[in-house]
Amino acid sequence: MFLSRICRQAAAKPFFKVTVSGNVKVTAKQSAIPNSGQGKVVTRKFRQHLSEYLRNLADPAIEKELRPLRHDAREAADAVLRLKSEKAAKDTLDKAVDELKERKRRLEEKELELAPVEASFDRTKLDTLLHACHFYRPAFGIYGAFPGLLYLGSNGSKMMANLIGLWEDHFVFEEQMLQITAPHITPQCVLRASGHVDRFADWMVRDVENGEYFRADHFVRDALGKAKIDDETKSALLGRVGNMGRDELWETIQKYSLKSPAGNGVSPPEQANQMFAVQSGFSGETSFLRPETAQGIFVEFNDFLHANKGKMPFAIAQTGTSFRNEVNPKHGLIRTREFQMCEIEHFHDPLDTSHPRFAEVRDSLLNLYTDEAQQIGAAPQLIRLGDAVAKGHISSETIGYYLARTNDYLQKIGIDPQRLRFRQHQRNEMAHYAKECWDAEVFTSYGWIECAGIADRGTYDLGQHSEATNVPLKAERRDPITGTTTSYTPAVIEPSFGMGRIMYALLEHSFRQRAGDELRMFLCLHPEVAPIKCAVLPLASNSEELAKATTTVCRSLHRARIPYTLDDSNGSIGKRYARTDRPGTPFAITVDYETLQRPQTVTVRLALSQQQARVKLDALPAVIRGLIDGSLSLEKAGKILD
Amino acid sequence: MFLSRICRQAAAKPFFKVTVSGNVKVTAKQSAIPNSGQGKVVTRKFRQHLSEYLRNLADPAIEKELRPLRHDAREAADAVLRLKSEKAAKDTLDKAVDELKERKRRLEEKELELAPVEASFDRTKLDTLLHACHFYRPAFGIYGAFPGLLYLGSNGSKMMANLIGLWEDHFVFEEQMLQITAPHITPQCVLRASGHVDRFADWMVRDVENGEYFRADHFVRDALGKAKIDDETKSALLGRVGNMGRDELWETIQKYSLKSPAGNGVSPPEQANQMFAVQSGFSGETSFLRPETAQGIFVEFNDFLHANKGKMPFAIAQTGTSFRNEVNPKHGLIRTREFQMCEIEHFHDPLDTSHPRFAEVRDSLLNLYTDEAQQIGAAPQLIRLGDAVAKGHISSETIGYYLARTNDYLQKIGIDPQRLRFRQHQRNEMAHYAKECWDAEVFTSYGWIECAGIADRGTYDLGQHSEATNVPLKAERRDPITGTTTSYTPAVIEPSFGMGRIMYALLEHSFRQRAGDELRMFLCLHPEVAPIKCAVLPLASNSEELAKATTTVCRSLHRARIPYTLDDSNGSIGKRYARTDRPGTPFAITVDYETLQRPQTVTVRLALSQQQARVKLDALPAVIRGLIDGSLSLEKAGKILD
Repeated sequence: MFLSRICRQAAAKPFFKVTVSGNVKVTAKQSAIPNSGQGKVVTRKFRQHLSEYLRNLADPAIEKELRPLRHDAREAADAVLRLKSEKAAKDTLDKAVDELKERKRRLEEKELELAPVEASFDRTKLDTLLHACHFYRPAFGIYGAFPGLLYLGSNGSKMMANLIGLWEDHFVFEEQMLQITAPHITPQCVLRASGHVDRFADWMVRDVENGEYFRADHFVRDALGKAKIDDETKSALLGRVGNMGRDELWETIQKYSLKSPAGNGVSPPEQANQMFAVQSGFSGETSFLRPETAQGIFVEFNDFLHANKGKMPFAIAQTGTSFRNEVNPKHGLIRTREFQMCEIEHFHDPLDTSHPRFAEVRDSLLNLYTDEAQQIGAAPQLIRLGDAVAKGHISSETIGYYLARTNDYLQKIGIDPQRLRFRQHQRNEMAHYAKECWDAEVFTSYGWIECAGIADRGTYDLGQHSEATNVPLKAERRDPITGTTTSYTPAVIEPSFGMGRIMYALLEHSFRQRAGDELRMFLCLHPEVAPIKCAVLPLASNSEELAKATTTVCRSLHRARIPYTLDDSNGSIGKRYARTDRPGTPFAITVDYETLQRPQTVTVRLALSQQQARVKLDALPAVIRGLIDGSLSLEKAGKILD
Repeated sequence: MFLSRICRQAAAKPFFKVTVSGNVKVTAKQSAIPNSGQGKVVTRKFRQHLSEYLRNLADPAIEKELRPLRHDAREAADAVLRLKSEKAAKDTLDKAVDELKERKRRLEEKELELAPVEASFDRTKLDTLLHACHFYRPAFGIYGAFPGLLYLGSNGSKMMANLIGLWEDHFVFEEQMLQITAPHITPQCVLRASGHVDRFADWMVRDVENGEYFRADHFVRDALGKAKIDDETKSALLGRVGNMGRDELWETIQKYSLKSPAGNGVSPPEQANQMFAVQSGFSGETSFLRPETAQGIFVEFNDFLHANKGKMPFAIAQTGTSFRNEVNPKHGLIRTREFQMCEIEHFHDPLDTSHPRFAEVRDSLLNLYTDEAQQIGAAPQLIRLGDAVAKGHISSETIGYYLARTNDYLQKIGIDPQRLRFRQHQRNEMAHYAKECWDAEVFTSYGWIECAGIADRGTYDLGQHSEATNVPLKAERRDPITGTTTSYTPAVIEPSFGMGRIMYALLEHSFRQRAGDELRMFLCLHPEVAPIKCAVLPLASNSEELAKATTTVCRSLHRARIPYTLDDSNGSIGKRYARTDRPGTPFAITVDYETLQRPQTVTVRLALSQQQARVKLDALPAVIRGLIDGSLSLEKAGKILD
């Protein structure tokens, strides 16, 4: 039931959505139409948004129903066009136009019927919540606007640390990978050998009047959207724009007289290297800020092979900041000029692409969007990993293994599996070093965004660095029969994660509004991901005894190193619960008058279900720990309250 | 008993040293002289090293004994000089020279007698160990030498992560500080307002022949060392060189004809800004890589005050990389071009410098080296914090509080308290923003190095940014009597930690050699700091049953998330213990034939004491956890083996 609404709990109120909670299945159909229940008008704009949303989402189940309707509408539109060009009689034309309208209506109705609840997601509401809860904001704001530079506030910093910690646990600790912390500043010679100096560039155009600059492909896409061109041509161009070279970009700009937002012409595309140059030292040596953490790993290959006692295969992990001088940074955390990466370089014998733990993931179901499917216009498909490798959709066990592990990680932290797919790069869009590449794409209000990539870099990087330095970067294999050893250049599989994008996608997938009270917006974060694990709320603020008991509760959490927050303001407990819920704090602990009796107890409330239980104070840290790591349920932790 | 050898366990063998271990007191006197016990000659070079070492260490107890002897020697030297200038009779002069030799001998003997065992520390041995254990190395080595750029290997990365984790626990979690993750790229306007664009510079000179460049003060210091000048003048100049301005540096270079290492003259000092410039975007906007993380905090003050509901005082913490274009990077982790910082900005009302938790640290004993003591040539002194604040040595409770907490942190991670002091900046050496500053200095083979600083930045930074932007950066205080509110610019106390330096100093303080087997070098790291917590060693490599039991042991550690390493090579157990000890792995778990019996047991060995106990397999993860956090002793964990 791929991309159905199973496993997603959707209550009866528009905008409201509560996911996950394991085995809860939902049968009730949920409308995505804002306020449709209250008889309000569905605007033309929303219908257009919905149509585009569904086209982007490309859910196979939905597509199956919409495709014939789209085909019918297209057929009717073509008929109208033909009749017009043939200058047909008015009543013939009118009839055809009526038919077109009818078919369009049918399509739109079906779209409204099938749209998932997320289609009504309103980003401005999430932005308001994230801003209020201090997740992230534009940096240096008092000095003006600095595109692509954000800062993470307290909640954002903690959530990012948790995401990285879970990543390290899931990949590095689990597989006992080696680790490195390489410099950000990277000498030019290194990045010349890797190909970045010559090829890591975007095409950029400038407004000929005001000098404003744009990434050429983004400029063409945006300007085409507004240009008066027939739908089919436009759609064909939009589908190709990401793969256009300099000449085609310039041709398109000229042919359709594409204008800048200010209404001016633009200059021919010029190359804009994405790397930031820096002078290290005072003798004019040029260096760059690393555009990926990978090169800092490759150049130290020999040290790590030695540290690993010469054994192959092995992997080196690195987490850290990379820098790209984006032509047009935008969309908050999606396209920034510095960003947190988590990367793995898995070195193996190119003659042996098997993975020792492949058997553990063979039965994983992955939502694969193969190169082939993209070419023939087919939808992504849920495929068993073992089959995908056997059939050659995925070229090796090692790539397959990391695809499955990436799938696990993203779902573990809370990415909606219904909005996750692995898209294979087409031949012409691959980076200069890649032989095969799969992007983990997550569907958000910005469309499908690339959050991680698993690339087969082959022997490209080690080969380039070895050639540039005349230093062999090789491992040895022993022939099992003759016992002779042969040296070879190891090949590399690279899983690479953009943590800012993952964080944003997760925040969007976690946005909720309470049924019956839409103003109560909150995040539903996995407890391991949540910045703060629990809130301590004394029932009243004017009781010395409650204050004393509250201190005891806080101290016990503190000693157990459980991140908590104290809200001892005099707002009503309901208001304080709402405030607690907002940044995704999963548990609230209320200190009330029963806490003063023996044995001391507190209530523990789950933000998601609003369920409460009375828990003994001396068991509290263990209970919260158990609730966080999932080893305990609220039912087992104490007496459930009605 | 400040800086005595109490609390330091020193066995009978030269080079061997085992510190701390809680309540073990040592009475045996330990010689620092290499091989002196074996009747070998103490070289002239070692005597000179020792003399300089003791002068730098400036241990008050040692100084007290040496000072009169130095005075006597100086007196005799002066007498010889005077007689020479007076052209005195040969026998008078000979007598004076004999007297000088005798007094010098007495001084040297006393120096040998008093020298602490660390004086015989040999850095090349530590370097060999760190290199072999992959802690850190020069980065991009296959491309040549890139000064100031290092990478941390697996052990280094893990140790650094542990040090930062302990720092966050000790400061951020303990005080529930707010957190930020600000960009590395910082717009010029921000750093112009902060004073860095104009004033964050070193003086630099260039070899007029080959263009090699040097930081001017370092150049003068090194060149003076080799110059033929009388000792007194040299010593006076060396004492002042750190505070020399451009003119005095140039004057000194000219007056003493100081030459470059290549023997050439140098150019007049020119200013070298320490910041790395980068172009962000494509319109020529200049930015810099942050030289400290602090400015990214100050500019967001309003957001954080709001997040803190307007309450004062409060603190914001940030950990991350900063960048300085050092003229002459050197000494491994000590002076690098990028470095890990942990910073806190504590905002408070300038009219209220009290700290709510000062009572908790009032009785801490701090080794303070006050401005005054430095001026009159007195030694640092162990002073009770409460007294130091009361007497005005430290100007506020808040500064005092952070001094005590810094002292605690550094000792907790394993810095030798005997080699730790807090040195107050003298007026002329303070940074442009500072009103008062204390450096936490740690004694290493490079001398006393600054590892952390606690600076009173006053209202300087908020004032500068507010003035530059016309945005008020203010908090409010309420008059308790009239109830009226007044707004004010908060003042800032900044504890700032250089984690690379702390890591290096700690590695040096942790270096050990086994008594009776000097080649068995190892690190004695606190278990919380150690990169790997335990090694699993099957007694034999050819037994399938042992291999199976070993897997069980590894899995149980893995599930408990305890970082371990497996050494199933066929080396002798003794050799494998030695290998395990080297990178500071505190515990070794041996799987032997008893492990195959019921109940299953393993031996747990402490690297430091080499003590062993038999521990039940099912209790193993809890035992190791308890040994790591110190809640359990080996005696309580199982049956001690002889």
